[in-house]
Amino acid sequence: MKKIERVCAITHILTENPNRDFSLGYFAELFGCAKSSISEDIKLIRETMDDGSLGTLETTAGTKGGVRYVPAISQEETEKILLGLKKAFEEDDRMLGSGLLYTSDILFNPDYMKGAARIFARQFARSGADMVVTVETKGIGVALFTAELLHLPLAVLRRESRVSEGSIVSVNYMSGSSARIQQMSLSKRALKPHTKALIIDDIMRAGGSIKGIEDMLAEFDAQCCGIGAVIVAGGIEGKKIGDYVPLLLMNETENNKVTMDINPLLLAKQQRP
Amino acid sequence: MKKIERVCAITHILTENPNRDFSLGYFAELFGCAKSSISEDIKLIRETMDDGSLGTLETTAGTKGGVRYVPAISQEETEKILLGLKKAFEEDDRMLGSGLLYTSDILFNPDYMKGAARIFARQFARSGADMVVTVETKGIGVALFTAELLHLPLAVLRRESRVSEGSIVSVNYMSGSSARIQQMSLSKRALKPHTKALIIDDIMRAGGSIKGIEDMLAEFDAQCCGIGAVIVAGGIEGKKIGDYVPLLLMNETENNKVTMDINPLLLAKQQRP
Repeated sequence: MKKIERVCAITHILTENPNRDFSLGYFAELFGCAKSSISEDIKLIRETMDDGSLGTLETTAGTKGGVRYVPAISQEETEKILLGLKKAFEEDDRMLGSGLLYTSDILFNPDYMKGAARIFARQFARSGADMVVTVETKGIGVALFTAELLHLPLAVLRRESRVSEGSIVSVNYMSGSSARIQQMSLSKRALKPHTKALIIDDIMRAGGSIKGIEDMLAEFDAQCCGIGAVIVAGGIEGKKIGDYVPLLLMNETENNKVTMDINPLLLAKQQRP
Repeated sequence: MKKIERVCAITHILTENPNRDFSLGYFAELFGCAKSSISEDIKLIRETMDDGSLGTLETTAGTKGGVRYVPAISQEETEKILLGLKKAFEEDDRMLGSGLLYTSDILFNPDYMKGAARIFARQFARSGADMVVTVETKGIGVALFTAELLHLPLAVLRRESRVSEGSIVSVNYMSGSSARIQQMSLSKRALKPHTKALIIDDIMRAGGSIKGIEDMLAEFDAQCCGIGAVIVAGGIEGKKIGDYVPLLLMNETENNKVTMDINPLLLAKQQRP
């Protein structure tokens, strides 16, 4: 196999498996060549990716030396994704009679949600999370893609207790938008003690459901190490939760039309993680 | 930019965007080179991928010539994924007191579900689907990854009607395992008429919920063009639905231990799609 072909194949495999460790020996065996050749290939791929802001390859030296692909996106691409989301949510006729916004098509669209997850994966690359946590149903898409990019498992809290979850822990929370007490549950098997959890959700209104997830984490002696939400409604003041990263801020206007602002912190020139 | 760097960058971009069309002009502009150079790069990537069963690049000729990456997996990798799933579901102490199997951790694990989705994406690459459809909650992971790999939108049927879905269509279905009549609903906005839908679900017992999805598709004048399920329980006979592709067949044994068989049709030597 020629060098250029190896570079192509290694790039493909690393890209398909973000944040997963591969030993140099794995590739050396796969292509029947010396580890030193693989090492040179990886150096070339790393330089190419960095040039184009496609991501970074992190390498560990030594006999057990390995490589992992850490996804990154350029500031330009981040802004393109955010503008695409803003435009989609602002489309005419999304406002339902109930005063809520129809969002299911966007929140289950792999293009939009993979884009949102890329931004979260960059923001939380250094969070130290060992689990992503969300609550069903419409946050599952963005949470799952974020978990994939960070190479972490995902736990999904249920709105009701389910027989297929075994012994469960339940917490009550105040749904801010409907001012009702609701319940969410999680299987006792779902989280190990002292888990560091990254919370990813779709839409945060008063923050009640994220507060509920935090209460649940406390029941498992787990710790929240970051919160991401695709949309935050009604301004940032008075939210029941701590530090978090929204992508879009929803303005509730009166003439049956919704506008969204992009989180200005994501538009500022960012340091690469 | 040197040829080997272009090959690396193009491989990365195509791999991250399965089944999406890119024009040669897009890459020519991105790298500031002639379309003929890009065309040669793509020929090299295509040959490398085919050699390693990593996928195929489909190209269209002419002035509007373009390229798309169609994911594929080798028979060897298919069997590795299936064995990994079988082993995970057969782990000790998954059997709950309710007689059901604890599966949430596997069904929301990106590694396992991306693997399952790769098999479905290969099986249904020629189905002509323009939408993936599932019903909440635990099938969403595998359905979303399948939708991503086929570059299709996903529609998720709800178990209850939700105010955030606007006008909905509801259908009743007989849950075979609990012999209860249940309801599922879908927003009227979710499917266009004459949609060709690929149904992806996690666990099929009597097939009632898939029959419910089929009834829902009929309400939208949509057509089912394929059914995939991670697990089918209780044998294939007497299922309420037509042709479908299970990955694993669950044997319900009496001593509180479950065993799974890999669908033998997936183990047979397959033609590349």
